[in-house]
Amino acid sequence: MASAEAVAAVVEAGGAHVPGLMRDLEERLATIAQSHGPTLGEHAGATIAAGGKRLRPLLVFVAAGPDPAGRDAALRAAVAVELVHSATLVHDDVLDAAVLRRGRPTVVASAGRSIATATGDLLFSRAFAELAGGGTVDPVRVLSDASSALVQGELLQREDAWKLQTTRERYLRRCDLKTARLFRAACELGALAGGGKVALLGEFGERIGLAFQILDDVLDVSGPAERTGKHRGTDLLDGTVTLPLILARERDPELERLDLRAVRTPEQAEGVCDAIAATGALGAAREEALAMVADAKADLPCLPEPSQQAALELVADSVVDRYS
Amino acid sequence: MASAEAVAAVVEAGGAHVPGLMRDLEERLATIAQSHGPTLGEHAGATIAAGGKRLRPLLVFVAAGPDPAGRDAALRAAVAVELVHSATLVHDDVLDAAVLRRGRPTVVASAGRSIATATGDLLFSRAFAELAGGGTVDPVRVLSDASSALVQGELLQREDAWKLQTTRERYLRRCDLKTARLFRAACELGALAGGGKVALLGEFGERIGLAFQILDDVLDVSGPAERTGKHRGTDLLDGTVTLPLILARERDPELERLDLRAVRTPEQAEGVCDAIAATGALGAAREEALAMVADAKADLPCLPEPSQQAALELVADSVVDRYS
Repeated sequence: MASAEAVAAVVEAGGAHVPGLMRDLEERLATIAQSHGPTLGEHAGATIAAGGKRLRPLLVFVAAGPDPAGRDAALRAAVAVELVHSATLVHDDVLDAAVLRRGRPTVVASAGRSIATATGDLLFSRAFAELAGGGTVDPVRVLSDASSALVQGELLQREDAWKLQTTRERYLRRCDLKTARLFRAACELGALAGGGKVALLGEFGERIGLAFQILDDVLDVSGPAERTGKHRGTDLLDGTVTLPLILARERDPELERLDLRAVRTPEQAEGVCDAIAATGALGAAREEALAMVADAKADLPCLPEPSQQAALELVADSVVDRYS
Repeated sequence: MASAEAVAAVVEAGGAHVPGLMRDLEERLATIAQSHGPTLGEHAGATIAAGGKRLRPLLVFVAAGPDPAGRDAALRAAVAVELVHSATLVHDDVLDAAVLRRGRPTVVASAGRSIATATGDLLFSRAFAELAGGGTVDPVRVLSDASSALVQGELLQREDAWKLQTTRERYLRRCDLKTARLFRAACELGALAGGGKVALLGEFGERIGLAFQILDDVLDVSGPAERTGKHRGTDLLDGTVTLPLILARERDPELERLDLRAVRTPEQAEGVCDAIAATGALGAAREEALAMVADAKADLPCLPEPSQQAALELVADSVVDRYS
């Protein structure tokens, strides 16, 4: 999803409050990055910039709705959610010894493990400080639960690495923990800020978060590299078993016997991607994700504001659009 | 400081509420460690156990005072402070690739960097969840500020590594950020829980935290190894310049010309420790710390409860006692 397009579409649908908030978000993130000395300023800034599309803050703003009374709380929540997201990216990069993220050098590559770990810890701390400044405690509970889930999801992924027999259920649990729970938190925090339906919006967020992760995993197999900015099959090279491979394994006996540890070069990984695609598993995985998005949208008519419903539908569609 | 002795002394001085809270603290920490699956349970449990003396929780309890109305908030605060302390230990061990802490294998040594980093992130998250459960937001602000300071202090230490010319002011700033601010937070959180004087108790905590760090740094030079459980001069081997060396450098031209990077073996480090001790710098550094403890105690007569004053004086003394 290109943020500018999604934001424009959301604004069109009745989210006139969103562009101002998105600008304030960037300003606030930049200020936070610069507030802890030059070293952290440089690297926290780079990490926040690498976060990219600001999909989670957008969810907060749309879930909060246009009431000016909730503006400050929505902005704090959006900042906090993006800081937690950025913190996990920088720690993931440390663990993966990643060199590039979105075409820029990672903090761990440019400044080393110490500074990268410290940068992540600082961003975590500032996320909670941001929420505390709002004066109510419920948002802190929501975000700390989501960030605990994130860590558990990350760990589950590492525990299951290289396990070809990973089940669909276990894969979905991992996606829920490492991705969907923060989407849920973004929507719940927006609902808390705007006085909206917390449970309904949270459920919506969790479903589109799950769809987002599945589609991201499909994209890693389907490519092409020009669109994702990386080779196909990076998950395979990390030993991460995702839904396309889980579904393909059931359809192709060759893949059922695959030795994941023998997949070592980008060329070998692309070969396995081709074998997965040949089974039709990519379309099947995409269908699962689209069904989740449809489920997510199905509850929205219960919202009192038609304009909020329309804006949320557009955000849900934008999760899907990048793969159409 | 041996916790059992310090607790006994505090109880004697009028802290009858403390032992029950210390027991509840251990129970609650164990429950949290076990609540996130077997992998994290094992390693979070090991990390929390490695935290050791529970000096920060003890500060929370004594600063909170005996009023049962503040009991729940004090317990939450103590748990949260200890979780943040544990999180920083496990991340420090990752960065230092440390093998042992207090004679036990570190998480990074027994489970690798991924699990250790995740364990630290989880402990951070649970600290804020614990405070959020208390229903008020001020504690979240206090703890998130302290944990941001901790990260900045850790980073300052790494930035200044191998810099023999580190000034006293810069050293004290580092100690304040990496140690004293969490002591301050412990006292402030206790004061918030017990309805006490937040600013006065916070100041007290910061001063004894600073003294604690200086004395810890003295102990690294003075040894003996049987008491600290490690060789003398480990800071020198890490390139960490502390107050004893800063003071000794001004007294001994040989040390002024020391090439820190040439100090590579435990034997060489012990040789430098001997040279530092010979200048009398250890006594001078100890004096500075004792003066800070005296300053900290000087404000305590403003407290309305003489028994709380006595208990806090004992905690302050216990920081000093381990070096007497």
